[in-house]
Amino acid sequence: MVIILKSTASQETRKEFIESMQARGLSVQVNEGSHSIVLGILGDTSALDLATLRANDAVEDVKRISEPYKAANRRFHPLDTHIEIKGRTIGEGFFSVIAGPCSVESEAQLSEVAEAVKKSGAGFLRGGAYKPRTSPYSFQGLETDGIQLLLKAKKLTGLPIVTEIMSENQLDEFADVDIIQVGARNMQNFRLLKELGHCKKPILLKRGLANTLEEFLMSAEYIMAGGNENVILCERGIRTFETELRNNLDISAIPMLKKMSHLPVIIDPSHAAGISWMVAPLAKAAIAGGADGLMIEVHNNPKAALCDGAQSLNPVEFDTMMADVKRRVEFEGKKLN
Amino acid sequence: MVIILKSTASQETRKEFIESMQARGLSVQVNEGSHSIVLGILGDTSALDLATLRANDAVEDVKRISEPYKAANRRFHPLDTHIEIKGRTIGEGFFSVIAGPCSVESEAQLSEVAEAVKKSGAGFLRGGAYKPRTSPYSFQGLETDGIQLLLKAKKLTGLPIVTEIMSENQLDEFADVDIIQVGARNMQNFRLLKELGHCKKPILLKRGLANTLEEFLMSAEYIMAGGNENVILCERGIRTFETELRNNLDISAIPMLKKMSHLPVIIDPSHAAGISWMVAPLAKAAIAGGADGLMIEVHNNPKAALCDGAQSLNPVEFDTMMADVKRRVEFEGKKLN
Amino acid sequence: MVIILKSTASQETRKEFIESMQARGLSVQVNEGSHSIVLGILGDTSALDLATLRANDAVEDVKRISEPYKAANRRFHPLDTHIEIKGRTIGEGFFSVIAGPCSVESEAQLSEVAEAVKKSGAGFLRGGAYKPRTSPYSFQGLETDGIQLLLKAKKLTGLPIVTEIMSENQLDEFADVDIIQVGARNMQNFRLLKELGHCKKPILLKRGLANTLEEFLMSAEYIMAGGNENVILCERGIRTFETELRNNLDISAIPMLKKMSHLPVIIDPSHAAGISWMVAPLAKAAIAGGADGLMIEVHNNPKAALCDGAQSLNPVEFDTMMADVKRRVEFEGKKLN
Amino acid sequence: MVIILKSTASQETRKEFIESMQARGLSVQVNEGSHSIVLGILGDTSALDLATLRANDAVEDVKRISEPYKAANRRFHPLDTHIEIKGRTIGEGFFSVIAGPCSVESEAQLSEVAEAVKKSGAGFLRGGAYKPRTSPYSFQGLETDGIQLLLKAKKLTGLPIVTEIMSENQLDEFADVDIIQVGARNMQNFRLLKELGHCKKPILLKRGLANTLEEFLMSAEYIMAGGNENVILCERGIRTFETELRNNLDISAIPMLKKMSHLPVIIDPSHAAGISWMVAPLAKAAIAGGADGLMIEVHNNPKAALCDGAQSLNPVEFDTMMADVKRRVEFEGKKLN
Repeated sequence: MVIILKSTASQETRKEFIESMQARGLSVQVNEGSHSIVLGILGDTSALDLATLRANDAVEDVKRISEPYKAANRRFHPLDTHIEIKGRTIGEGFFSVIAGPCSVESEAQLSEVAEAVKKSGAGFLRGGAYKPRTSPYSFQGLETDGIQLLLKAKKLTGLPIVTEIMSENQLDEFADVDIIQVGARNMQNFRLLKELGHCKKPILLKRGLANTLEEFLMSAEYIMAGGNENVILCERGIRTFETELRNNLDISAIPMLKKMSHLPVIIDPSHAAGISWMVAPLAKAAIAGGADGLMIEVHNNPKAALCDGAQSLNPVEFDTMMADVKRRVEFEGKKLN
Repeated sequence: MVIILKSTASQETRKEFIESMQARGLSVQVNEGSHSIVLGILGDTSALDLATLRANDAVEDVKRISEPYKAANRRFHPLDTHIEIKGRTIGEGFFSVIAGPCSVESEAQLSEVAEAVKKSGAGFLRGGAYKPRTSPYSFQGLETDGIQLLLKAKKLTGLPIVTEIMSENQLDEFADVDIIQVGARNMQNFRLLKELGHCKKPILLKRGLANTLEEFLMSAEYIMAGGNENVILCERGIRTFETELRNNLDISAIPMLKKMSHLPVIIDPSHAAGISWMVAPLAKAAIAGGADGLMIEVHNNPKAALCDGAQSLNPVEFDTMMADVKRRVEFEGKKLN
Repeated sequence: MVIILKSTASQETRKEFIESMQARGLSVQVNEGSHSIVLGILGDTSALDLATLRANDAVEDVKRISEPYKAANRRFHPLDTHIEIKGRTIGEGFFSVIAGPCSVESEAQLSEVAEAVKKSGAGFLRGGAYKPRTSPYSFQGLETDGIQLLLKAKKLTGLPIVTEIMSENQLDEFADVDIIQVGARNMQNFRLLKELGHCKKPILLKRGLANTLEEFLMSAEYIMAGGNENVILCERGIRTFETELRNNLDISAIPMLKKMSHLPVIIDPSHAAGISWMVAPLAKAAIAGGADGLMIEVHNNPKAALCDGAQSLNPVEFDTMMADVKRRVEFEGKKLN
Repeated sequence: MVIILKSTASQETRKEFIESMQARGLSVQVNEGSHSIVLGILGDTSALDLATLRANDAVEDVKRISEPYKAANRRFHPLDTHIEIKGRTIGEGFFSVIAGPCSVESEAQLSEVAEAVKKSGAGFLRGGAYKPRTSPYSFQGLETDGIQLLLKAKKLTGLPIVTEIMSENQLDEFADVDIIQVGARNMQNFRLLKELGHCKKPILLKRGLANTLEEFLMSAEYIMAGGNENVILCERGIRTFETELRNNLDISAIPMLKKMSHLPVIIDPSHAAGISWMVAPLAKAAIAGGADGLMIEVHNNPKAALCDGAQSLNPVEFDTMMADVKRRVEFEGKKLN
């Protein structure tokens, strides 16, 4: 960390400030110039609060040199993380497709979709049992019954299942879920993240609508700091001023997250665009941009879906898209699994 | 709700669509023109999913006429809501100042600040016991001990207390807290909101960093739909492109929320700007703009604060500000309490 | 256009409003329901001002059904536009690479870069002579001398040239420029756009930092309304909250612009990311996402560049990238030219 | 400026880099630590391009200590700037109200509005002759005739006039205009700004929709660097995600601009909200927040206005608002003129 002291700070103030740093076990390099005093702070600065440092009258500005995330940081873990789930691998060199309905609606619906996506080549089944809806009057998911139907569909198809958790109180119910999803709105639900750090299950962490990549990695860090290193990052569109689509897929997030971190990066083009015809072009871009997988909404009857029908593909559209996905994954030299 | 059907939709498709609306108990007015068919949908459309409607091949576009929030809507509750707490009133015509440290750090710190803010005229004491921090390595609050210290300070000063909840599992601990705060990052933690709907305590709901006013009111609606109508809205700055300050106070939110809803609106200028010298000018603007109160961070020693020191006033600065606040509240014809 | 009148509007007010529409030559369908009156407005509504309509006491809301852009609209021009420039084609089915330095600095620099990018397969040479810089103290370009050097490089290599115009007063100087670029900051410099509508030269129009796609097409419409239909749309990154990179490439803009309009869409990954190592992954995503071409900054010595060195490739890096671009363009079944 | 070199940079690379700085006439302080080398760069660094510096392999990061704006910077001009126009003063301690129609439509309209706003206490008359409209099909203003009508209204009422320029080619026509306005969309039309720097007329510079305050001041700097120091800053709302109103007034911009710069700051609540009923509450907040004036749209018949009717007050509403403005300006201890 570099701290720039004001040239107007008195000798005493400077001394006091430097001693306060040393009292925290940090070592301080002092570089005095004619216009400013630059301090190099060495040691573990991750607990220092930038805002509070800036509150000090003697401080002109503060600049972190090292990132505040450790466990998620590629600098300290240069090798890509691979997560093994029931014989499938998520991570660099592989490509994973997670598909299924936005929400589980019935046994018939889920088994129809599950078998269809498996046949088309998806490696994982997704489905929402607990649904975070903007309105309390919208369908909130089948909840416990939804989890049971997912477990049935898992038995039927052999596909590992991915579903969203909304509270740490649901963890027991998620015992047989293969990948626990944390939704965009809960990306900074820190109590939930902490609890997920104490289990060993893979966590698919979705980026918040308006969060920076550093904030995203800090949320991964919450899980990892608790001991669970199986975190999969999922970019699902950010909020912008555009009104023609629901969110904007942040394609740059793929190469940037891969540079900042060693964790796998999955793209959700269904939520990103919010329109079914745009899922395929965004999926193509995501594959070429370096994503490790896709999360796609598929519904047997999108126009009767209880949620997010506008962005769901039907099984035929999904099958067509998967034929193209296979060609592209092969072109990139990756293994679909 | 107005639904515009495509002029290219077949007679059969239109008929099917209209019947699907009627099957939901809605009444449909059909207005055929030469270029489009406009349907007026009457009845309770709050459970209809716009995205799914738009997924229908026959649909050109959909437009809500009535807002999706009911309990929070001024249209149905024209009179301002007033919330009574230990002899104080929050709501139109009154003005409430909630002050205290970002986080509770020790008994000495809290009692010093509590007595100081009381003396300067604050009506409520705030203090964080559970702290939502971006980094897992930052100070996370004194937790249970922090709640205990707040209760002691309440007994000492007689000031009602406001503190933030981070999980529905903490509700029992909050039994003697006077106002429960929901932080910006938990604005869409729907499980938490639902549980808060089942208690009767006043809830101070903070707006998320990048949420629209409608989304904000939908979160209030989650609480109110459960039966708890004591919701206080708190605007605390939105994320913008500006780098000179932490967030941007959305001053328009005051008159707009007051028009959309009957709930009280409080402004938090400390978090909005993130810089202590800007708290006073933003507070002035908030009072003139029609706010029902302010939430201000005060710390006995900002430069040693364990969190958010940059935005905290010290007791002397707060006292100076309060002298001005009193003049201005009087100018607006409101009653400080 | 659909206009929803308030149910509280008096008979007289409604009549007056309807007559004011008819007086503008528009035909009005009246659909009275029990809760609202919906008017369907037929005719050329492109000159109607939505804000003013909403100012009318009788009006609840207004919704456009037809887009306000005509000439740029795919609805009225279903076939893709192809622009022919010196034997090369820009548009669907083809792929164009425009490469060169951010700014023209000297004859030696430009000819070195020009020959290098030609050899690597670029079809067009770019270079800035007039530079829009945020600071008046930054290098402002070689101006007239820069244009002369570009014309020399064009003669030397045979590559058509692309350079940015900053004022309608520069048009004479641009007589031998092959494609005139309008920068992001001038996307809504309407006087300039109008003048460009009176020439026949191809215009490469860059999207503004925070503009919607509709606003972007309305700026294209300014040029096209004047009679110049040779407009190439260029997405170059939008401003978001992310601090790790300069701008965020809006990858969704490619399929969405192609749906809204028939005009070619070019991507500028250099400006989008602002970092050279990210140019290649974004270029890959852009090709897969359906772009008709790329605009890439290449400098013979990026670290000594007078502007935007951080995002420039050197000729060797560009050559490596072009080998990959060729494979990908072929994979997409397009023709590099 | 502080430049942090990578600890991995070779001795030779560092030496080369340091010499390149010295070759630009800058003096370099070298501070070597065990983990990084921090360079303090002294001298005029305003022409250094941060992006290019960061492109250098040896550079870890770069941080400006001094702001890139000089003439607009309060640090070098601690006293508030006051601009005298026909006996009125714009600047700290005074309060100026600029009022009039969005666009000049006819002599009758303009004279009616001009006399009304004068009577209510406005000090300046505004009116658009050249109108920057998103659509080429919208009313573009009366242009030259509009300027003539403004000059007539000036003669009639004695009010100095403010109107918007859209191209440097219009400067001759603006010879008798008292304050030349640069619109938000032209905030970075650098050719126009440069030309305005060569005249001595007061320039009312509007902030762009999505520009930072530093970018805003850099545009003021373009004008001031040319020799014209009479710049008035105007905040008119920024683009946010909110859909209930057109733009969001950035109230923090007032105290922050006043801290960064010595230039006067005017608020335009009409454009900020885009809704007439919100003009008054925003005006109140602006006065309390420290603004030096207001710019208000007034139209004799808002619902027939050729542009922006939704945000215009009628003369009666304006008169009511002005009575309140007067009380508030007096409360702030300022002089309305």
